[in-house]
Amino acid sequence: MIPEAYIAAAEAAADAAGAVIRPLFRSALLVEAKGDASPVTRADKEAEEAIRALIAERFPDHGVIGEEHGADRPDAEWVWVVDPIDGTRAFVTGRPLFGSLVGLLHRGKPVLGIIDQPVTGERWLGVAGRPTTFRAPIGGVAACRPCATVGEAELSCTSPDMFLPGDRVGFERLRSTARRVTWGGDCYAYGLLALGLVDIVAEATMKIWDWTALVPIVEGAGGRVTGWQGEALLPGAEGRVLAVGDPALLPEAVALLTGA
Amino acid sequence: MIPEAYIAAAEAAADAAGAVIRPLFRSALLVEAKGDASPVTRADKEAEEAIRALIAERFPDHGVIGEEHGADRPDAEWVWVVDPIDGTRAFVTGRPLFGSLVGLLHRGKPVLGIIDQPVTGERWLGVAGRPTTFRAPIGGVAACRPCATVGEAELSCTSPDMFLPGDRVGFERLRSTARRVTWGGDCYAYGLLALGLVDIVAEATMKIWDWTALVPIVEGAGGRVTGWQGEALLPGAEGRVLAVGDPALLPEAVALLTGA
Repeated sequence: MIPEAYIAAAEAAADAAGAVIRPLFRSALLVEAKGDASPVTRADKEAEEAIRALIAERFPDHGVIGEEHGADRPDAEWVWVVDPIDGTRAFVTGRPLFGSLVGLLHRGKPVLGIIDQPVTGERWLGVAGRPTTFRAPIGGVAACRPCATVGEAELSCTSPDMFLPGDRVGFERLRSTARRVTWGGDCYAYGLLALGLVDIVAEATMKIWDWTALVPIVEGAGGRVTGWQGEALLPGAEGRVLAVGDPALLPEAVALLTGA
Repeated sequence: MIPEAYIAAAEAAADAAGAVIRPLFRSALLVEAKGDASPVTRADKEAEEAIRALIAERFPDHGVIGEEHGADRPDAEWVWVVDPIDGTRAFVTGRPLFGSLVGLLHRGKPVLGIIDQPVTGERWLGVAGRPTTFRAPIGGVAACRPCATVGEAELSCTSPDMFLPGDRVGFERLRSTARRVTWGGDCYAYGLLALGLVDIVAEATMKIWDWTALVPIVEGAGGRVTGWQGEALLPGAEGRVLAVGDPALLPEAVALLTGA
């Protein structure tokens, strides 16, 4: 059981990130920066500092891992894993498809996750052992949909440029088998999978702060998140992430990605 | 001068499209359709019928061209060019980045355009000879930004899969010279260019209903929309579209796309 105080802290952390990030969205500062990520990096850092301060105050013995400020007590029983702006390119170009990610590991296992879209007001909350919830003024219901074969599946991936050379053959086998692919999305694509609008997301070069929050959200909506070999994602995972809305898709998707 | 009654009709047409489309966004119908575009095609058709009825009533001598219902009086002095759901894949997967497009040609020249995002409430309005306006609850100001070279430019494109074999070499030259590329977007990417958040959009296989509305919006924000050779887009154009936020980018972008 995840203590209610941890869930409340995760919501407060996402609120804190949104308060830092929202004023910068499509701001003159970003327009002037012309594709330079530095104002975003600054917002990302400030938001992460706000989250770290909140966690340090409420749970001084917990660990925290974040993209901008590194790892504090990564071997603690409970470790928060945060990325206030997942989807920097979406943010920089004014697309409201980036997300603030707040995740929690218990002994290395993802047990709590939030994806927050501070501009549209969408928030996904996943807690181990509970159904995922989704709040949004723009509609959607948290529940993955059935999809028996990759041939029927809507595939999503942030960018064809995110793969290392060794990832490309497997991804291409999956892509050419899937019904269709849509590009762009970052964490938002996993949120859409948890709403039953996308069936598979396959990505690579993912860091622990990119995937921790996604696991409880997708799994609490009925899907699965694993590595490309179908293995559980644990700290130290190699960065290849596979999410399926219908667990029945997993063996076929793994076979295509690995060529087995 | 574009009569005010035409601008009011364009706004009413976008409103009518939104009223048909909004209830379907992320609806159970779409979740069940599992990547099948047919519910969207139905919404697209119904929205186009609503727009056609509105135009027929207000301007019975005007022409109308739409993706779903073909061309009526395409040789009229004034021809409306509409696509209620531009970005079907975005719509089907629950991304609020599709748009309703309402454009107007005067003697073949695009003189009025609306991009409407009925879920986020964003609306771009471009009228020949006037500054483009942008209304949105989520922020943004209609004004392209300066960008002197392709090397500094943020490039955007809906999908690497939209190009014909003959388009790929030119696009790849542009892509590898640009500072970065973001994927996804459809008409929304041109809207972001008109907000100064993207510098170049280059696409191919674009139909007249994909680009008519975009021209007055981008040009009224200070940018340019042409074919890949820098030529004006006119009915019968070959489908390769280039938009630049800073007109100074045009010669370099054309040279890269054409290899000249």
